[in-house]
Amino acid sequence: MNKIELTTLLAEDVSGTPTSRIVRSLSARGSLSAAQLARLTGLAKSTVSQTLADLRRSGVVVEAAAEGRPAGAGRPATMLTLNPEAGTVLGALIGLREIKVIIADVSHAIIAQKSVLMDEDYSPADAVDIIRDLATEGYRDHAISRAGLMGVGVAIAGPVNPIDGRIQRASVVPTWAGIDVRDVFGPVFNRPVVVDNESNCAAVAEMTWGVAQGHDDFVLFKVDAGVGGAIVSGGRVMTGIAGAAGEFGHMSINPDGPLCRCGNRGCLELYASFRDNLAIASRRFGRPMTMDDVILLAESGDVGCRRLIEDTAEIAGHGLGMIGTIINPPLIVIGGRMALAGELLLAPLRASYEKHTLVKSRDVNAASRTQIVKGQFTENDSVLGAVGLVLRREGHNRI
Amino acid sequence: MNKIELTTLLAEDVSGTPTSRIVRSLSARGSLSAAQLARLTGLAKSTVSQTLADLRRSGVVVEAAAEGRPAGAGRPATMLTLNPEAGTVLGALIGLREIKVIIADVSHAIIAQKSVLMDEDYSPADAVDIIRDLATEGYRDHAISRAGLMGVGVAIAGPVNPIDGRIQRASVVPTWAGIDVRDVFGPVFNRPVVVDNESNCAAVAEMTWGVAQGHDDFVLFKVDAGVGGAIVSGGRVMTGIAGAAGEFGHMSINPDGPLCRCGNRGCLELYASFRDNLAIASRRFGRPMTMDDVILLAESGDVGCRRLIEDTAEIAGHGLGMIGTIINPPLIVIGGRMALAGELLLAPLRASYEKHTLVKSRDVNAASRTQIVKGQFTENDSVLGAVGLVLRREGHNRI
Repeated sequence: MNKIELTTLLAEDVSGTPTSRIVRSLSARGSLSAAQLARLTGLAKSTVSQTLADLRRSGVVVEAAAEGRPAGAGRPATMLTLNPEAGTVLGALIGLREIKVIIADVSHAIIAQKSVLMDEDYSPADAVDIIRDLATEGYRDHAISRAGLMGVGVAIAGPVNPIDGRIQRASVVPTWAGIDVRDVFGPVFNRPVVVDNESNCAAVAEMTWGVAQGHDDFVLFKVDAGVGGAIVSGGRVMTGIAGAAGEFGHMSINPDGPLCRCGNRGCLELYASFRDNLAIASRRFGRPMTMDDVILLAESGDVGCRRLIEDTAEIAGHGLGMIGTIINPPLIVIGGRMALAGELLLAPLRASYEKHTLVKSRDVNAASRTQIVKGQFTENDSVLGAVGLVLRREGHNRI
Repeated sequence: MNKIELTTLLAEDVSGTPTSRIVRSLSARGSLSAAQLARLTGLAKSTVSQTLADLRRSGVVVEAAAEGRPAGAGRPATMLTLNPEAGTVLGALIGLREIKVIIADVSHAIIAQKSVLMDEDYSPADAVDIIRDLATEGYRDHAISRAGLMGVGVAIAGPVNPIDGRIQRASVVPTWAGIDVRDVFGPVFNRPVVVDNESNCAAVAEMTWGVAQGHDDFVLFKVDAGVGGAIVSGGRVMTGIAGAAGEFGHMSINPDGPLCRCGNRGCLELYASFRDNLAIASRRFGRPMTMDDVILLAESGDVGCRRLIEDTAEIAGHGLGMIGTIINPPLIVIGGRMALAGELLLAPLRASYEKHTLVKSRDVNAASRTQIVKGQFTENDSVLGAVGLVLRREGHNRI
């Protein structure tokens, strides 16, 4: 299989040939049956069948590994993927205090994961050096040629302008403001680079591999040291005209409240992030506490830690209730480190949402109710989504 | 031109023949040049040219009337429309205290407009009788055969469930809750019926004929006796899983505030609708005041009326600022009766939006700024949008 050929097939626009449409669908979804491909591409079954035969003959498409197939009556449909040997994708997260890297192949298998902790305010040059080194290690550890690298996806802790691809006034990573990540990464990797905000990437991860698979419309809501999220509409992550869509943490829920680092007052994040609660917990236990510590203690019955989580759920539910009133989504995926608290967070969050949103569950039939579920990925969602950006051919330039 | 033939062409799904794709584009947009058609449909220019020649020969497509073409150097492109004789569309608004009807032809020309005031809580049977009578009058006045009616679009003052097409718990028109408008209108008109919420229809009107033409992403925000709106993403009005997307008036901006008719507390509508201000103005002037009265007095320099409009703009701007933080749209269209105040409302509304939203205009370049503009239609937006629903083949079943 020729890597260049696959790159060309993936680069063609959606109104392309049947071959291109099938390859793009497999790239976006991982493994699919012929019937699923026909449905997704809108091509006739006979066209799909003929094209797949050609693609299998030339080694671009192979049968997917059998694991994970549902055991059931009857012969299961043959699942197909792109040939994992045809190419790899690099995903990187440029976070506030960490850099993460994932190498995956075009069949959606993850080959390597690496991460390092960083001091705050590291420079773009530092980031690209570290990501290059981590990638080199990953390829070396698994004895895979870097020549097969098809593209680099970057998730960054700040809004990305969808028009010029530059980091917008970056409250989270201030030294990066005005940088075009493609300019920084392009010359080093010599491959196409796509970049998006970390929460938008997290949504891509959930729709590609997680609980939002098959959902074209959902909201991702992250509760962590900050509050953020993303809106997916019609299968597309909304970026906003300045890259700021989904910045739920900066809804000014109390215009007379305390000043926020964003320049507004009373932002949701000031009340619903877990930052202040960590300070309370640390005082209570006389040692520095992490979110994981608080969750663990709450799980083992500590009433104080439970209350801190419930209070966060109550105020987060007010903000989320307003988001529900505006978007009325079929699905809300709860992400961020606090999602690891599971039902300790989700049960009071659902109750608060029900209280504060317009459409009450009890008033509509089951099919019209918003489902609130825990995300599948809380730790690696953004870096995984960066891989997804490349596989799905998404990134900047979507408003 | 055979009406049945056109109906068939319009009913085919989007992956249809070149003929169907061209006819659907003309139906949705009104008049287009051959070059615009090629761009919109993705068809080759030669295919468009050949198909148009066939459609013109058979009388389905005609040259658009010359008026409204920009005078400029060079020969203007020939604009084409569907043959106005090929069919008509009926749009109806079922409002709180009024029913409106518009008859338009498939070239997007408006043939007749009618409206009647109603007592509150009129029944579906009353509504359908009145709409049928108004339509009959309209066809008779203009000596047009009703046989050419291709479809009926209905805008209703309540959320429409996108799954089953029924009126959701309808706070505005309570007696209609649970009704499927298609069941009521279908047997009377014997034509396809599409139905959507009045604010969603208003957004369709602005994108079809108004200030949002050519915009695939925008927010409509209505300030009137209530507050409402719609979100358009990727050229599609978001309906929400229960038909409640865009219900901006019921964002609970103060969870300890007064009880709202929707069952929440402190909804935006309680502060930003013009209802309370009308009571204040009526006391001040010792006579019942309408929004038009207040606007007229404000325009002629009455400082009290100006302040009432400014106060509404300030609080509406807080809510709109939160919507901006969540959606970060390229364009916000201000509708509703209060939009008739023009800059008296819009200037303070923009200032309040800038204060309360995350992305400040001054921090981003011009291309990344949210534009806030007055809608083109404030009085007939919903009924016009009901016509648009049919011409654009939209309506229920979009989430």
